[in-house]
Amino acid sequence: MFPKVGSFKFHIESYVCDFTGKATLPVVSNFILQAATIHAHERGFGYNNILKDNVAWVLSRLSIEMSEYPEHDEDLTVETWVENVTRFFTQRCFCFINKNKRIIGYARTIWAAIDIETRRPVDIPVWRPDLQDYIEQEKRCPIEKLAKIPSVNGLESSMGYSVRYSDIDINKHMNSVKYMEHIVNTFDLNIFKEKFIHKFEIVYLAEGTFGDKLKLYKQSVSENEYIIDTKKGEESICRSRIIWK
Amino acid sequence: MFPKVGSFKFHIESYVCDFTGKATLPVVSNFILQAATIHAHERGFGYNNILKDNVAWVLSRLSIEMSEYPEHDEDLTVETWVENVTRFFTQRCFCFINKNKRIIGYARTIWAAIDIETRRPVDIPVWRPDLQDYIEQEKRCPIEKLAKIPSVNGLESSMGYSVRYSDIDINKHMNSVKYMEHIVNTFDLNIFKEKFIHKFEIVYLAEGTFGDKLKLYKQSVSENEYIIDTKKGEESICRSRIIWK
Repeated sequence: MFPKVGSFKFHIESYVCDFTGKATLPVVSNFILQAATIHAHERGFGYNNILKDNVAWVLSRLSIEMSEYPEHDEDLTVETWVENVTRFFTQRCFCFINKNKRIIGYARTIWAAIDIETRRPVDIPVWRPDLQDYIEQEKRCPIEKLAKIPSVNGLESSMGYSVRYSDIDINKHMNSVKYMEHIVNTFDLNIFKEKFIHKFEIVYLAEGTFGDKLKLYKQSVSENEYIIDTKKGEESICRSRIIWK
Repeated sequence: MFPKVGSFKFHIESYVCDFTGKATLPVVSNFILQAATIHAHERGFGYNNILKDNVAWVLSRLSIEMSEYPEHDEDLTVETWVENVTRFFTQRCFCFINKNKRIIGYARTIWAAIDIETRRPVDIPVWRPDLQDYIEQEKRCPIEKLAKIPSVNGLESSMGYSVRYSDIDINKHMNSVKYMEHIVNTFDLNIFKEKFIHKFEIVYLAEGTFGDKLKLYKQSVSENEYIIDTKKGEESICRSRIIWK
């Protein structure tokens, strides 16, 4: 049996780095999704395992806090474990360890299991009571639970985009990380020269599909804090909060 | 001494796949750049090696021909070698080998060596006469030499974009592969359901920088052939040709 905590190593290639020579927030988030995918697969509840039940995991919320980002040509180790399983959600945590074995960040994610046909949430403890066995009791994830992210209303849209081929992933939906790429792109290059994204939270509320015209509404909440609302018409598709440091 | 032909293995992760479950053209192109980077580095003429001479490699042209694309969870082997070195350009070729050891594609690239300060091309045989020693005589790359790609004039722009944070790479320029991502995004999702990009050629003519507003002009040349011109005002930044199959 695999241990409750999975540990996965990623190498920071030049083409995943931004102009500061470090991996970007969307890239670290891709590592999160990949580590979660492999961890679940190894333990018998990955995408391929649960497809036979007509069920799929859907990322509902993501919160990430970095004290620094890994640099070009370094290795990054991502540890992940299941923190909790409730009726409709599982909570999965992550810890990022740099080449010097120092912790440089944490992440917390919340996943729903949905019926592929009805798109309705599945009662997880009824469907898979064995998931309880994978809950890790020892490891601590020091990130606060996700707070509600308010909607941003009445403000000028800072940017818009249409959902295109490159935004659609292997599951035929708008890729969760692509939303993030569009969100970080609302910022001017200068802010990335002086600061880095210390904290990022996102809540997925609805699904974007090919051809959708999405608008990004951004509001500054305090000097280093922004709320960005991705909307399709009046409907929020996802809401995010960025805190710079 | 390293052999003239370098061989590098890449794993096709789910997050580099499109909705058909295969690696995309931009992803295969990232593998090309990465294989070239490691091959040159191992042999003493990589980015870091030549920085002391104030010289950098710049991709000038890329031509790629695929009979199929590698699938999710497969390994792809990329072989690369130097085909020729002329006064101002080196020609580097690539061969793509799938998990069953079958060749599924080739690519041909042309690189200039430029002085970082003056941005002028360097006389390669004078600067580095030793590069001749790396020319591989045996391997054949069956792709035709790049033909001229005409400009697309007077047509309605199919799409535009501003160069943003995610478009800028570790060298502080618009990433060569990001142009390609925007180019493939001009196509409707339906064409990707029925066909794949069999042949892709691109010529880089000028550099895009942060904040530039670029427009993509697309013209259908024959049933499966398109020319896409990426322009900043009247100036072509890069021109590309796509042949679907």
